[in-house]
Amino acid sequence: MPGTVADEERLDRAFAALADPVRRGIIARLSRGPATVNELAEPFDITLQAVSRHIAVLEQSGLVTRTRDAQRRPVHLDAAALEALTAWIDRYRLVHEQQFRRLDAVLKKAPQRNQGKEGIS
Amino acid sequence: MPGTVADEERLDRAFAALADPVRRGIIARLSRGPATVNELAEPFDITLQAVSRHIAVLEQSGLVTRTRDAQRRPVHLDAAALEALTAWIDRYRLVHEQQFRRLDAVLKKAPQRNQGKEGIS
Repeated sequence: MPGTVADEERLDRAFAALADPVRRGIIARLSRGPATVNELAEPFDITLQAVSRHIAVLEQSGLVTRTRDAQRRPVHLDAAALEALTAWIDRYRLVHEQQFRRLDAVLKKAPQRNQGKEGIS
Repeated sequence: MPGTVADEERLDRAFAALADPVRRGIIARLSRGPATVNELAEPFDITLQAVSRHIAVLEQSGLVTRTRDAQRRPVHLDAAALEALTAWIDRYRLVHEQQFRRLDAVLKKAPQRNQGKEGIS
């Protein structure tokens, strides 16, 4: 069931990258299209250096990429990397849902005893 | 666009909780049904105390809950909390996809110039 060490480390970095409101804000902005560091820094009340560090964390996590265009170097969102995270979460969310449905089916098959007890109280 | 401070802190804690392979392993196990700390510790080569600390992190993040059943105190997965994370990610993933589709439509509307250039080379 668990992935390779590289897979696990990628998930570690990606989830950790999303555990910060500034980095989530950057992801939200990039979902609307590529942007430069200056554009990304604009809505935040922190230094350009701090924004650059957040972008570096996102880059190391694979959630964003930067083109080598020396003039602008815009930052891009990697939607496939985001999808890998929802795939991980949904896998276990769906297993959990299935278990619930199975339990529900079992309870529906044998309701007599419980209903009898409830009738007494 | 950004949520309340409480929402943001909840996302911080939940994403940080998933940024660890042992905690993801615990989530995977709990997707199949509630389990005690001993049961959760079994597949891991770490102390029971370390597992308890991981469970405490997951509890604080809201991803798991513990019943007050003193005998067993099994740990349960909170599927709704997991869903909140996929909802956050998917929101921006879908915005990004829409932007791509719009760009694609624009490029399809005016293909003559680029095709002409390609024809020459």
